[in-house]
Amino acid sequence: MNGKKGCVEININPSDTKTKRPEPGKNSCCREFSVKAWIQKVWEFAKEDSNRVKFSFKVGLAVLLVSLLILFRAPYEIFGTNIIWSILTVAIMFEYTVGSTFNRGFNRALGSLLAGILAIVVGQLALSAGLVAEPIIIGISIFFVGVITSFMKQWPSLMPYEYGFRVILFTYCLIIVSGYRMGNPMRTSMDRLYSIAIGGVVAVLVNVLVFPIWAGEQLHKELVNNFNSVADSLEECVKKYLEDEGLDHPEFSTTLMDEFPDEPAYKKCKATLNSSSKLDSLAISAKWEPPHGRFGHFFYPWSEYVKVGAVLRYCAYEVMALHGVLHSEIQAPYNLRITFQAEIQDVSSQAAEVVRSLGKDIGNMKRSLIKSLLKRVHSSTERLQRTIDMHSYLLTNYCDPPEINSSKPLPKLPEEADPESNGLENNTNSGTPNCTFSGSLTTAQAQPESYHELMRKQSRRMHSWPSREVDAFEEEGVNGTDFLPRMRALESTAALSLATFTSLLIEFVARLDHLVEAADKLAKMAKFKHEGV
Amino acid sequence: MNGKKGCVEININPSDTKTKRPEPGKNSCCREFSVKAWIQKVWEFAKEDSNRVKFSFKVGLAVLLVSLLILFRAPYEIFGTNIIWSILTVAIMFEYTVGSTFNRGFNRALGSLLAGILAIVVGQLALSAGLVAEPIIIGISIFFVGVITSFMKQWPSLMPYEYGFRVILFTYCLIIVSGYRMGNPMRTSMDRLYSIAIGGVVAVLVNVLVFPIWAGEQLHKELVNNFNSVADSLEECVKKYLEDEGLDHPEFSTTLMDEFPDEPAYKKCKATLNSSSKLDSLAISAKWEPPHGRFGHFFYPWSEYVKVGAVLRYCAYEVMALHGVLHSEIQAPYNLRITFQAEIQDVSSQAAEVVRSLGKDIGNMKRSLIKSLLKRVHSSTERLQRTIDMHSYLLTNYCDPPEINSSKPLPKLPEEADPESNGLENNTNSGTPNCTFSGSLTTAQAQPESYHELMRKQSRRMHSWPSREVDAFEEEGVNGTDFLPRMRALESTAALSLATFTSLLIEFVARLDHLVEAADKLAKMAKFKHEGV
Repeated sequence: MNGKKGCVEININPSDTKTKRPEPGKNSCCREFSVKAWIQKVWEFAKEDSNRVKFSFKVGLAVLLVSLLILFRAPYEIFGTNIIWSILTVAIMFEYTVGSTFNRGFNRALGSLLAGILAIVVGQLALSAGLVAEPIIIGISIFFVGVITSFMKQWPSLMPYEYGFRVILFTYCLIIVSGYRMGNPMRTSMDRLYSIAIGGVVAVLVNVLVFPIWAGEQLHKELVNNFNSVADSLEECVKKYLEDEGLDHPEFSTTLMDEFPDEPAYKKCKATLNSSSKLDSLAISAKWEPPHGRFGHFFYPWSEYVKVGAVLRYCAYEVMALHGVLHSEIQAPYNLRITFQAEIQDVSSQAAEVVRSLGKDIGNMKRSLIKSLLKRVHSSTERLQRTIDMHSYLLTNYCDPPEINSSKPLPKLPEEADPESNGLENNTNSGTPNCTFSGSLTTAQAQPESYHELMRKQSRRMHSWPSREVDAFEEEGVNGTDFLPRMRALESTAALSLATFTSLLIEFVARLDHLVEAADKLAKMAKFKHEGV
Repeated sequence: MNGKKGCVEININPSDTKTKRPEPGKNSCCREFSVKAWIQKVWEFAKEDSNRVKFSFKVGLAVLLVSLLILFRAPYEIFGTNIIWSILTVAIMFEYTVGSTFNRGFNRALGSLLAGILAIVVGQLALSAGLVAEPIIIGISIFFVGVITSFMKQWPSLMPYEYGFRVILFTYCLIIVSGYRMGNPMRTSMDRLYSIAIGGVVAVLVNVLVFPIWAGEQLHKELVNNFNSVADSLEECVKKYLEDEGLDHPEFSTTLMDEFPDEPAYKKCKATLNSSSKLDSLAISAKWEPPHGRFGHFFYPWSEYVKVGAVLRYCAYEVMALHGVLHSEIQAPYNLRITFQAEIQDVSSQAAEVVRSLGKDIGNMKRSLIKSLLKRVHSSTERLQRTIDMHSYLLTNYCDPPEINSSKPLPKLPEEADPESNGLENNTNSGTPNCTFSGSLTTAQAQPESYHELMRKQSRRMHSWPSREVDAFEEEGVNGTDFLPRMRALESTAALSLATFTSLLIEFVARLDHLVEAADKLAKMAKFKHEGV
């Protein structure tokens, strides 16, 4: 901490990994180093998205252009001091994307126009009412314009025009008040409207003609990214679920709950869940944009993007639930999980592939044959279901295993699991149903770990749930009759956690249908090209 | 649709139920009726939250007060035309809550100050550079201020101060340009700063002294509402899951996917999931507020509210997953669900009670003994686990049922399920394992529906998943050997859907611990009073 004294430290978020650079050296050279690091950070930030730099230079250009109007003598002599309103307009109107600049410009223009008309009407009315009544009428009108605009902008369907109402309020006040003081409100408002129009035109022209940043393009990219995040996150989650042997679960603590440093895709998936408002606002902006680039026809279905995003979010909820099972404190034993490894892996990687190629298709504005991929996922899902069905006795701890081998062939299982069915039969046929994971635990013979060690681990995990429960166990449980049934219940629930995981995975696949449907509707409405046609 | 012609129709959202009032009468009287309805709508909107009206009148009052400065002669003569900047400041600065007004005022003040200082320095520099160089220096400086402020406001940690950077930009331009044209930038900027200060003071005073709307209070209420939404939604979901017999599931269509009209709490729970940005911004605003009302000490832990909200959201994810199981197309048969009715009901209602009383405690700023409630939930959860464990053979379709009755007593089960265990034993002992829901379906004998009817229903439901699969079945499935194993797999998964539901419920309970912990931390830091102390 000492070595950081005096360093430039812009990023106030301590969890940001970028700020955690090693900073060698003493206090004397710290400043140089940190300035260097700081410049590099800024450079990386700019390189990450070149639009950021473009946008900055565009703003500079726009204010420079509008300032020239005043710096040169000619335009200043025509409009007088009112020309400074064009600067204000540029600074307030200039937004990141073309669409939102249009939107803001529309709000500003319409607001100014309405306020101008209202101010002129009320101003004339007040003027004709006589010297005493004039300020009273003006004051009352200002009060009511304030009340009405503020009330209206809270109305849900008018909320997007909040800025317009603000413009109405201050433009009205400015025109009517300066009209009262300076006379000739008509002239004042016209001059002001002209200079606002000049500012607006400059802002729009610079925004559209110099490296335009289209909201539509952003929306398009954002949706494709969301597809990739969901696919990555699904794969990551399943991979971790099947990998996680011997690792102790990090405590599910409240401080940690939002951060799993080894799961980068999870973070992105969470961002996807919170992206609804971003997609909404981009779609609103995109609707203001004229056809451009690859979005070449009028009435491009931007709102369909929002709908596809919503369906995708429903898929992401399942991924969150899967993630919940992965990090829950009740865990199916590793041997049980590994039994279904191949099937789970198949389903998840194929489902992720469907999501990814849907995203790719939307990204390339093409329609490819997703149906065959979808069919593959469905058959893999079926295989998973069948495998679970055949081995469902593993999920319970009471029953004798049925005569699987004699009656029907086992579906293909992963190699590690293959010797299991025999070992299992030997074990359970000879022993009594003794309420352990007889099926899964016997596979431990093939593993380096001893049976007892595994059992100990198992029971420790069981005990760790629920956190408060541990005390309860110690208080009343261990001393007698109550303990064993409890342990059994926890064991059974632990095994059923695998059932939960697969059910959620299957539900994810079921939702894929709707995702494909939504993407298909978008492709139709946006007239994506068929691949190879 | 015809009858609506010419009606005032403010609410553009067609799904809003409020707009769907019956509108009798013809075109001639439609106008009157709709105006009446419209007024009533506005009245209801205002009554729903009286702060809306208060806020509107406060804005009116603030602009009126500041306009009086110009309408009266004295202040106008001191400040001249620059006084109109105070109107602009009020209109732009006046926000809904006290905290955000302070925040915005801070941005405005600091931005204006920095811009003023910079403008004066650069202005003097340009002045000393000579007549030719002066406009060039000014132009270049404007360009770079535009570029730098626009770049900086995109930096993640500076984003909350976006408005401040805008203020810097336009204030700088205004001062330096009008200084160049009108001479004496010092005088211009001082006058402007004074009038901005006057506007700011008026805005703050009105906002704080007249019916103050505190962001802290809003945050407090919002969090309590979120607790109630999650509790309601959990109960609603479980109730529907256990009730849903005979009802056909509405198709899980993409258009419907966001709206279940008979589930009001679900909508609220979804709103909770999207509330993170709202809580964040309220907490940011609340930090600007002085101690007030019941939040009577400095450094009140507003950020803890956000943390509790995050933990609560993690609980809500589980509710969403439960909801997913409720509406998934693979469903456990009703008879199976009803078997565990009492236990599921117990757990869910007690868990909802914990959530609700946590919310109530926070609402009343008290600390009560949640631990006893939590213990009750845990023991109910254990009972659920044990019951599932005892009956886990119901979730599989291969095994012979164990000798439950002989070895250990059955835990308490609902009355409908009681005759089941016998019927089930008879059935499965006599028959071969024929891969139907032997356990659950035999209970159908007690139900009015015939076994076959139920079976038909069951299989129709099974078939409906996955939607695309139906064709596949018809193409290749029905004609032979492949069909039966598939059906079996679907049946087993259907039964495991109950396991999923209960696992998710148990996971919800596990997360309650963390919720209680987070709420406890908040209670400590905010110094809530112990109940009865």
